Amino acid sequence: MKDLRLAGLKTTRSTIEVKGVTIGGKEIILMGGPCAVESSIQMSQSAATVKQAGGKILRGGVFKPRTSPYSFQGLGLEGLNYLVQAAKDQDLLCVTEVIDAASLELVVDKVDIIQIGARNMQNFELLKLAGKSKTPIILKRGLSATIEEWLLAAEYILAAGNSQVILCERGIRTFEPSTRNTLDLSAVGVAKELSHLPVIVDPSHAAGRRDLIAALSKAAIAAGADGLLIETHPNPAEATSDGPQSLTPEQFVQLAGELGVVAEAVNRVFACGGQNEDTLESLRTQIDQVDQRILENLAARMEVVRKVGDKKHLNQVKDSKREKEIIQRLVNLATELQLPPELVRKIYPLIFESAVQSQIKSKLVRDPEQELELELELAVYPIGSK
Amino acid sequence: MKDLRLAGLKTTRSTIEVKGVTIGGKEIILMGGPCAVESSIQMSQSAATVKQAGGKILRGGVFKPRTSPYSFQGLGLEGLNYLVQAAKDQDLLCVTEVIDAASLELVVDKVDIIQIGARNMQNFELLKLAGKSKTPIILKRGLSATIEEWLLAAEYILAAGNSQVILCERGIRTFEPSTRNTLDLSAVGVAKELSHLPVIVDPSHAAGRRDLIAALSKAAIAAGADGLLIETHPNPAEATSDGPQSLTPEQFVQLAGELGVVAEAVNRVFACGGQNEDTLESLRTQIDQVDQRILENLAARMEVVRKVGDKKHLNQVKDSKREKEIIQRLVNLATELQLPPELVRKIYPLIFESAVQSQIKSKLVRDPEQELELELELAVYPIGSK
Amino acid sequence: MKDLRLAGLKTTRSTIEVKGVTIGGKEIILMGGPCAVESSIQMSQSAATVKQAGGKILRGGVFKPRTSPYSFQGLGLEGLNYLVQAAKDQDLLCVTEVIDAASLELVVDKVDIIQIGARNMQNFELLKLAGKSKTPIILKRGLSATIEEWLLAAEYILAAGNSQVILCERGIRTFEPSTRNTLDLSAVGVAKELSHLPVIVDPSHAAGRRDLIAALSKAAIAAGADGLLIETHPNPAEATSDGPQSLTPEQFVQLAGELGVVAEAVNRVFACGGQNEDTLESLRTQIDQVDQRILENLAARMEVVRKVGDKKHLNQVKDSKREKEIIQRLVNLATELQLPPELVRKIYPLIFESAVQSQIKSKLVRDPEQELELELELAVYPIGSK
Amino acid sequence: MKDLRLAGLKTTRSTIEVKGVTIGGKEIILMGGPCAVESSIQMSQSAATVKQAGGKILRGGVFKPRTSPYSFQGLGLEGLNYLVQAAKDQDLLCVTEVIDAASLELVVDKVDIIQIGARNMQNFELLKLAGKSKTPIILKRGLSATIEEWLLAAEYILAAGNSQVILCERGIRTFEPSTRNTLDLSAVGVAKELSHLPVIVDPSHAAGRRDLIAALSKAAIAAGADGLLIETHPNPAEATSDGPQSLTPEQFVQLAGELGVVAEAVNRVFACGGQNEDTLESLRTQIDQVDQRILENLAARMEVVRKVGDKKHLNQVKDSKREKEIIQRLVNLATELQLPPELVRKIYPLIFESAVQSQIKSKLVRDPEQELELELELAVYPIGSK
Repeated sequence: MKDLRLAGLKTTRSTIEVKGVTIGGKEIILMGGPCAVESSIQMSQSAATVKQAGGKILRGGVFKPRTSPYSFQGLGLEGLNYLVQAAKDQDLLCVTEVIDAASLELVVDKVDIIQIGARNMQNFELLKLAGKSKTPIILKRGLSATIEEWLLAAEYILAAGNSQVILCERGIRTFEPSTRNTLDLSAVGVAKELSHLPVIVDPSHAAGRRDLIAALSKAAIAAGADGLLIETHPNPAEATSDGPQSLTPEQFVQLAGELGVVAEAVNRVFACGGQNEDTLESLRTQIDQVDQRILENLAARMEVVRKVGDKKHLNQVKDSKREKEIIQRLVNLATELQLPPELVRKIYPLIFESAVQSQIKSKLVRDPEQELELELELAVYPIGSK
Repeated sequence: MKDLRLAGLKTTRSTIEVKGVTIGGKEIILMGGPCAVESSIQMSQSAATVKQAGGKILRGGVFKPRTSPYSFQGLGLEGLNYLVQAAKDQDLLCVTEVIDAASLELVVDKVDIIQIGARNMQNFELLKLAGKSKTPIILKRGLSATIEEWLLAAEYILAAGNSQVILCERGIRTFEPSTRNTLDLSAVGVAKELSHLPVIVDPSHAAGRRDLIAALSKAAIAAGADGLLIETHPNPAEATSDGPQSLTPEQFVQLAGELGVVAEAVNRVFACGGQNEDTLESLRTQIDQVDQRILENLAARMEVVRKVGDKKHLNQVKDSKREKEIIQRLVNLATELQLPPELVRKIYPLIFESAVQSQIKSKLVRDPEQELELELELAVYPIGSK
Repeated sequence: MKDLRLAGLKTTRSTIEVKGVTIGGKEIILMGGPCAVESSIQMSQSAATVKQAGGKILRGGVFKPRTSPYSFQGLGLEGLNYLVQAAKDQDLLCVTEVIDAASLELVVDKVDIIQIGARNMQNFELLKLAGKSKTPIILKRGLSATIEEWLLAAEYILAAGNSQVILCERGIRTFEPSTRNTLDLSAVGVAKELSHLPVIVDPSHAAGRRDLIAALSKAAIAAGADGLLIETHPNPAEATSDGPQSLTPEQFVQLAGELGVVAEAVNRVFACGGQNEDTLESLRTQIDQVDQRILENLAARMEVVRKVGDKKHLNQVKDSKREKEIIQRLVNLATELQLPPELVRKIYPLIFESAVQSQIKSKLVRDPEQELELELELAVYPIGSK
Repeated sequence: MKDLRLAGLKTTRSTIEVKGVTIGGKEIILMGGPCAVESSIQMSQSAATVKQAGGKILRGGVFKPRTSPYSFQGLGLEGLNYLVQAAKDQDLLCVTEVIDAASLELVVDKVDIIQIGARNMQNFELLKLAGKSKTPIILKRGLSATIEEWLLAAEYILAAGNSQVILCERGIRTFEPSTRNTLDLSAVGVAKELSHLPVIVDPSHAAGRRDLIAALSKAAIAAGADGLLIETHPNPAEATSDGPQSLTPEQFVQLAGELGVVAEAVNRVFACGGQNEDTLESLRTQIDQVDQRILENLAARMEVVRKVGDKKHLNQVKDSKREKEIIQRLVNLATELQLPPELVRKIYPLIFESAVQSQIKSKLVRDPEQELELELELAVYPIGSK
């Protein structure tokens, strides 16, 4: 694609830095909020939800491009103030959609990120205007835009001088009626192969129904997305738009709590917030979950160690040199992780010892004739000794 | 959907048991192999790859439904024997596609699972015949089939008497040209909401290009899929069909090695195989990775414990009753995981102790005036004592 | 498309001859009947309707590929007999759909044309079997088949030995919900450019609603289709399937009556039938319509002649040599059209005379100064003399 | 669709009157010109072509919404002047596309019709602005817009105060790669059923290739379109955009020459222009074509008359009363058509006579025993006598 002069992938991926938040880095960025700003209280509740969930950015539409001229068109400037204030109160960034030159001018100095919606993805005049601002832009993929067209739309913004473009996949129009649109998660990989720009995913507009949001959010992270844009509303049943696809505050926070491990599974990071609301009870549940993972990993370790053992003679199962190296490496890692190094020094010898015992047992089970030999050996080289 | 009399979701999800392999349970089932069976050696290499990766089922087409009558149409019975033998040699199950009554009759007693391909999803006569066999069926979604039509196709099989149907999402036809089809991961959730049948995902036919397979496989698991059907070929460059979307053996094994943590992140299990090929070197790398996860979890535990501490007075940071409960629970879990319970008994007290120290330090940093009080207290209640 | 070895366009277009009916020639072939054969009386009524409309081929499904296993699946052999008998009674050909080897074997010697439906377009085994028969095949385009895939499916039939394939466009699956499918009339031209096979159009399955059938039928002819396959039912409200898209007998006959002029407009022919039912009244209406067209054409002729006149001097308006040539040509044409040549010989001189008068008048109106000159001229060269 | 308060169909269809041109009436309106205005000479040539073809409206883009920022973006104001001047010189109306508030303001007082393109169909702010002008608007359907969304976009313009909206179907995005888009001719009928607004068709952007334009244009008229918007360029090979889909001037004029009969076939009117360029040769070809139609109609008349004869006894074949009535009616019609009534009075008796002879011959062939009876009868009632 020769025309991707600026958007095309070169040597390194871009990150977009906005007031301390990095989009396109190792951290998965969560953005949330209602489809439309409706009131001051709705926005402050939404902001609290987003904060609690570990979200970094509050969304809310004040200029709404609606299919029917008789649908609610947004609160405009009044709504903008609600959005900005709510974000500020919770120390969040905020993003809102612009639909023309006038709305762009109105919001450009007040919000941290500007969204250009799917229906305006090829509103090239708006892209050029957005390209003249210094504000980062979330550029949603059009309903029937090919990935190439989407990247060329981004190129319009870049070519006009604004290098801070975040691509957002939000579902494409297909024949399938059970979802509002069809989320195209391949687009994340394709866009990242062709371009250096960060790519986030909006599962809410794709699915159009809240029961699929959790699964699609996790899938988006697993597919390589740099962030999520998810709709949440204090009371979805009374939302002026997109109620059926908005998560309740509880669902939003719960989902966020499940994203960390998924992020970790693909070498990304997502830290759920939730400090303010942690009860003693919920913290203990968290500890229990962590403990379970620790044991699962210890078991996995034991399994691999057993395989190592299978490759060695009985008198090689203990390898003090490697044990020292391991401990040294882990002590360094512990320091990085702000974990007391003494803990590593105390528990790893116990883990090694347990592993050695396990290997010996395993060997004897498979080859009982070694038993005698072992007994002789143990006499001179007692297991567990250091 | 009133006509989903048998396929419709009732109270529990179905699992399909095939010779010790359970599809639709907690474990993610990996199926792999070439698009078309080409030779005996190709199949034995493929089977070894699948086995090494922890796959349970070997795929290979011997009756190929090809768009052009002049394309390779499959080896037929000869190919079937190669497939069956290769699977048997590696203790794998095998699956192949049938395309009409004759091919169904030929394979039904020789393979473990029968596939009905996307182009035959609404070949209702074939569905009825498949419904009369006792062999489990993988039913691929048609290129432009709605989810409702797909489930009704499954209903044909169920209604004819065969209850063992595994649904397989493999991409739908859309306008987007950068991928062969558009993988519809929402379909996993929708199908599972409407039906009790297991759902697997074939990212290879969806993407049509190997560079996206890893990301889409992880996304599929995160989206809730019960298994993966992935094409691999000993030498993709010389494959008679679907070469560009086939993983090399190395890519296949590497991908499998990355799926376990993703599965775990959504409370599923996938164990990469790899015994035969494990070198001492690779095993040590695995140990290092596990150790890193253990420490990360220990760090995470410490972080949560610190929050618990923030909610308590200094003299409450030690809670012996809860410690005992934790150890009891973990000892039980260890037994389940075939981990020596003594290890838990030895290392958890050390972890508790380290945590208590950490809490105290943390409290003092924030509230140094407590220091004196602490010293007094420690005199009567030494930390670490039981 | 190199694999279109037999289906690809060479020098001439193919016509399929079936018992005196030519598909792919100058004549537009109308095929009609119900979606499903339901009863003997339903079929004899349908056949009468098709005959009355000038249709040549009666359709009716006896093996129905239905989305749900619980929908009516067709009357099978019993229905086949109803179809064949009804067609025979009205001297029509008949066509029915086959869905597998068994149904193909059952109908192949009883019907004149076999249909392979959209859902079986890539049921390659069925295509190969159909290719081994000598019966002409209507091959419907699959719901999401590209034109290339459709032609390659035809190639399967041709390659197996049956050269009599009629392509049928019947709408493709898109995002638009107001019609059952989206009729792709561009496909007619594209298929005809790539292949020599005849192409017909089924507007009924495309639209899924009867109010659009008339417009789409005319559009199909205008787009170059060689025939139409239209659903009609004696009582659509009680049809077992596809009622909403079936025309009533009256609508079907009326539509047929409107197709002739459209066919003529694109140099094709369609003759509405209706002999049996013609009343003296309706025949006189037909005469009146034809007379109107004759006069409109005479007026158009006069208009063009006037333009010719504008290019000539007054003394050139009469051109006896060209008049003789015209008459000779038209006498030949009259013989072809089974029109008495004497009629041409009698009326054309009158038409010429009238034209000359008209030209002169027209010239004088524009250039009255020529009047004197004219009078002089007429004295020596009286208008109308031969 | 309750929100189609103004666009919804009420009792009568709307027509849009622009300086003497009526869109939505009986006449098919042809609009043509290049995709992009490139030069003064290009526009004057294009205008001449459109005029010659009988077109009423000249199109030409001066603000081009292009997928890539590096493609030609249009000549702007300079191009606008070329367009306006070229149209004026040929006494044509003109239409150009607007893409934002600035371009709208620039062109609104200079062109006769404003186009809102497919990519801006849901640029609601632009729709509202267009709704505030008094200039008629051509509203193209979006690439993936449902018909409902398209009509609601029209409703935006109507609701803002401009009632002059012309809908334009231009192809939708589907999976089919052989055409740029898929022309959805069902949309003409659906839009007309739901709305009173005129609907035109742009086959050029739908097909994306010039070889299909003629067939699709005719199909559009047959489907009920009120007009056509077709791209033509003096030299398509050098067009700055859309060359492959632009007709040459010759193709454009030839196509226009073929549209009249199609329009007539569906009770519409289209008059090809072409006076200035008519050669004696081309006029004679036109006469030959008209003559052929006259004879075909005479033959058709003879065929119907024969059927009338079959219903009558030999002595009824002559019906002087009806003959007089026919002549009287046709004399009136001739006057309307500016055809000399004497011509009717002279040739129809000859036609009647020929018909009577033909009927008698036909009767005798079938029933030779009547011959004697006939001879007797003729003695007293000589055929052809008046």
